[in-house]
Amino acid sequence: MTPEEFRRAGHELIDWIADYRQRIPDLPVRAQVEPGQVRRSLPALPPEEPVSFSAVMADLDQLIVPGVTQVQHPMHFGWFPSNASLASVLGDIASSGMGTLGISWESCPALTEVEEVVCDWLRQLTGLSEHWHGTIHDTASTACVTAMILARERASDMSKNQGGLQALGKPLVVYSTSQAHSSIAKAVQLAGFGNDNLRLIEEDPKDRAMSPAALARAIKDDLAAGRIPAGIVCSVGATGTTAMDPVEDIAIIASQHNIWLHVDAAMAGSAMLLPECRHLWQGVEQADSVAWNPHKWMGTILDTALFYVRDVEHLERVMSTNPAYLRSTADGQVTQYRDWGIPLGRRFRALKLWFHLRLDGPDAIRARLRRDIDNAQWLARQIEATAGWELLAPVALQTVCIRHTPKDAAGNALAGDALDQHTLNWVERINASGAAFMSPSLLDGRWMVRISVGVEDSTREHLARLWELLQQEVAR
Amino acid sequence: MTPEEFRRAGHELIDWIADYRQRIPDLPVRAQVEPGQVRRSLPALPPEEPVSFSAVMADLDQLIVPGVTQVQHPMHFGWFPSNASLASVLGDIASSGMGTLGISWESCPALTEVEEVVCDWLRQLTGLSEHWHGTIHDTASTACVTAMILARERASDMSKNQGGLQALGKPLVVYSTSQAHSSIAKAVQLAGFGNDNLRLIEEDPKDRAMSPAALARAIKDDLAAGRIPAGIVCSVGATGTTAMDPVEDIAIIASQHNIWLHVDAAMAGSAMLLPECRHLWQGVEQADSVAWNPHKWMGTILDTALFYVRDVEHLERVMSTNPAYLRSTADGQVTQYRDWGIPLGRRFRALKLWFHLRLDGPDAIRARLRRDIDNAQWLARQIEATAGWELLAPVALQTVCIRHTPKDAAGNALAGDALDQHTLNWVERINASGAAFMSPSLLDGRWMVRISVGVEDSTREHLARLWELLQQEVAR
Repeated sequence: MTPEEFRRAGHELIDWIADYRQRIPDLPVRAQVEPGQVRRSLPALPPEEPVSFSAVMADLDQLIVPGVTQVQHPMHFGWFPSNASLASVLGDIASSGMGTLGISWESCPALTEVEEVVCDWLRQLTGLSEHWHGTIHDTASTACVTAMILARERASDMSKNQGGLQALGKPLVVYSTSQAHSSIAKAVQLAGFGNDNLRLIEEDPKDRAMSPAALARAIKDDLAAGRIPAGIVCSVGATGTTAMDPVEDIAIIASQHNIWLHVDAAMAGSAMLLPECRHLWQGVEQADSVAWNPHKWMGTILDTALFYVRDVEHLERVMSTNPAYLRSTADGQVTQYRDWGIPLGRRFRALKLWFHLRLDGPDAIRARLRRDIDNAQWLARQIEATAGWELLAPVALQTVCIRHTPKDAAGNALAGDALDQHTLNWVERINASGAAFMSPSLLDGRWMVRISVGVEDSTREHLARLWELLQQEVAR
Repeated sequence: MTPEEFRRAGHELIDWIADYRQRIPDLPVRAQVEPGQVRRSLPALPPEEPVSFSAVMADLDQLIVPGVTQVQHPMHFGWFPSNASLASVLGDIASSGMGTLGISWESCPALTEVEEVVCDWLRQLTGLSEHWHGTIHDTASTACVTAMILARERASDMSKNQGGLQALGKPLVVYSTSQAHSSIAKAVQLAGFGNDNLRLIEEDPKDRAMSPAALARAIKDDLAAGRIPAGIVCSVGATGTTAMDPVEDIAIIASQHNIWLHVDAAMAGSAMLLPECRHLWQGVEQADSVAWNPHKWMGTILDTALFYVRDVEHLERVMSTNPAYLRSTADGQVTQYRDWGIPLGRRFRALKLWFHLRLDGPDAIRARLRRDIDNAQWLARQIEATAGWELLAPVALQTVCIRHTPKDAAGNALAGDALDQHTLNWVERINASGAAFMSPSLLDGRWMVRISVGVEDSTREHLARLWELLQQEVAR
């Protein structure tokens, strides 16, 4: 395709995107397709002849769009917000259009240096000290795998250089809680620790936060049994109920035993743009690594996950290789981000953050985050004030965990499996209708519903509409 | 930013990209900036007030573009081609604009199912049997880490579920060669094997391919010493000289000992679109995993790496978690790509391949690959026919490895460190000038120059210009 053909098609595509974004509120939130429906609508054989751009766009409209769950929809309250602000989309388009390659500083100096600058801007905007050095990963899952490998190598005295983990003889142990995101257990497994060396530490039953006393006991027991405490993953905004582990108390314990402390703030990191929220990760300065996702609530389009460490030397010792074909005269004077993570090649992702922060400005982002916190509090108050409804966890930020418990004809409250069935029924009816979307989830073995507030276009009006819908549906 | 503001800015950006692509031939290939120059040109403090789109675009032009090494430049012969075909850029823009989220089938059914379709199209286009199932990773490096974890878990009987790697007692061993990409050693280290459990098997001195006899001996020795052979990484187009390990002979050995065989065809996978090249990975059907990068020679914009496995059950056993908040009624009927790799969240990367294959069509891509193979052969013939020049390895595809050896006043050929200095001098002079770019690399401890043919806009004329430049520069 020539640049002139691209120009014509590109203009058409920009109009299509602008129109698409405007019609999202009219689309069903959850895709209304059956498993396999999109796949069956596409040819099983690869194309032989090239087709026109308008043919591709027609298929995009007719075959692809119906198969998209609209996470930018103002009635989307599922999982966590996955905002794709249009300012950041422009940065992503610029990055794609330029077709740069990041495999070393030399392969695109600007890619490396803009990444250094925007990671440092976000360090400052979230109130972290200058001891932290950041890079962009695809997701917090990958950042956590990296953190677990860093923990493993510190605790095993760089076993990767001799003998590997299998030569260690003693088990390495990682500590987290049952509330932690599924990626934590996955990271522990992928890094080779073994799932039975992941300890799920007791939580405070009220706010689901890790109990520092229980953590200290578990570490003591492991040490007594000859095991090596290697890592702690502290959740700041855990997925289920946005639980906030007490970072400060945990950091004291971690440093006593020289255990790598990773703070998983994938969701709540965005809130640290607000000075009034920073008490939620009080103590973070004593951690070893922190990850959070601007591609969630803050709204820089996926994939934009930040990973900060204090000890860059350890990071580079663990993650670096130095092949001859990538050496250049600039070595030693520049950052080689290939030595800060798993992949060698990287996109110019920093442009997404650069465009987003400059075009929207931090104040507008902060105002939106505060709006969402207010809206979540408003919904929580409605729930608390209404008979039959229950708020299941403190609303620390923007996730509201609820359950509705009806009474049967005899006036007895529904319980057990029947209550689970009621919960799953009403939430699935709403989700299936396309009118709104929320995530059912388990808490203490029973189903509840998570309402995650924070889509860029979600206003109080949408929350009010949701609350009405909830009350209608549970009464059906 | 509103959709209407996006529309206006987007049109401007599309024109900027079309113009930019047209002026690439007039830009220096290697960025002409000093370390730190781009960073120092940007504010150290984060923005406070939003700025206009035109202010951002002016900075993009004046501050960022000079810091970009132009890998789309027709005189770029460095590393490997990193083509970003404009058809695939359109797919990437569509993906960004839609702002989808891939964390489960339910979060975007089309994202999952188009990925299934395009991975299968490329399976067919490269002549793989229907026993292979593919997914898109960011890079072949990440695919290799995944393959090494799959190897580890097979050889350790799923140690991730109990005890971890450290409970194993016996060392696990991986086999590759000195020619393998640096990501292989990194993957072995990250997966926890320990670098001294990576055996670099002897190569055939002529074509730098792994010696199957030497491999068989090494495995026998390790077994005799009580070690467990776990993985073999076979390079199809290794980075230094595009060496082709003999997959078929290696696969026979791997299957005898039930060793996981990963085929790293990051570069050469594109060539498998050409039936006449498929003998280069003869035997691939007996491997366990294969990775290759459409984002290299084939030209679907970064990041698009394909990872195929035959045993999907093992893949999912190793990589899956199943948290409550991601369960849906579609479970069991659909593919959950989160269980096929490291990250949970994924972009709609399949659209890049879908647009690229449909808009350009496989025939045009094949014609370009054949043009590049011809051009590389042409250059190799010039080198071989010219006194003072030496071709250092067979040109299996599109990489030409060369050295120039001048004679001193007494008629003696330069050798040793003086020859290294000569090589580094002439290549650095050309690279620094911005007229062309090639990668110096080490072969048997001595510097050579890799000329990697294959940029989309590189024609015979550019090769001829390069050959002239080479002859001029070595004579200076």
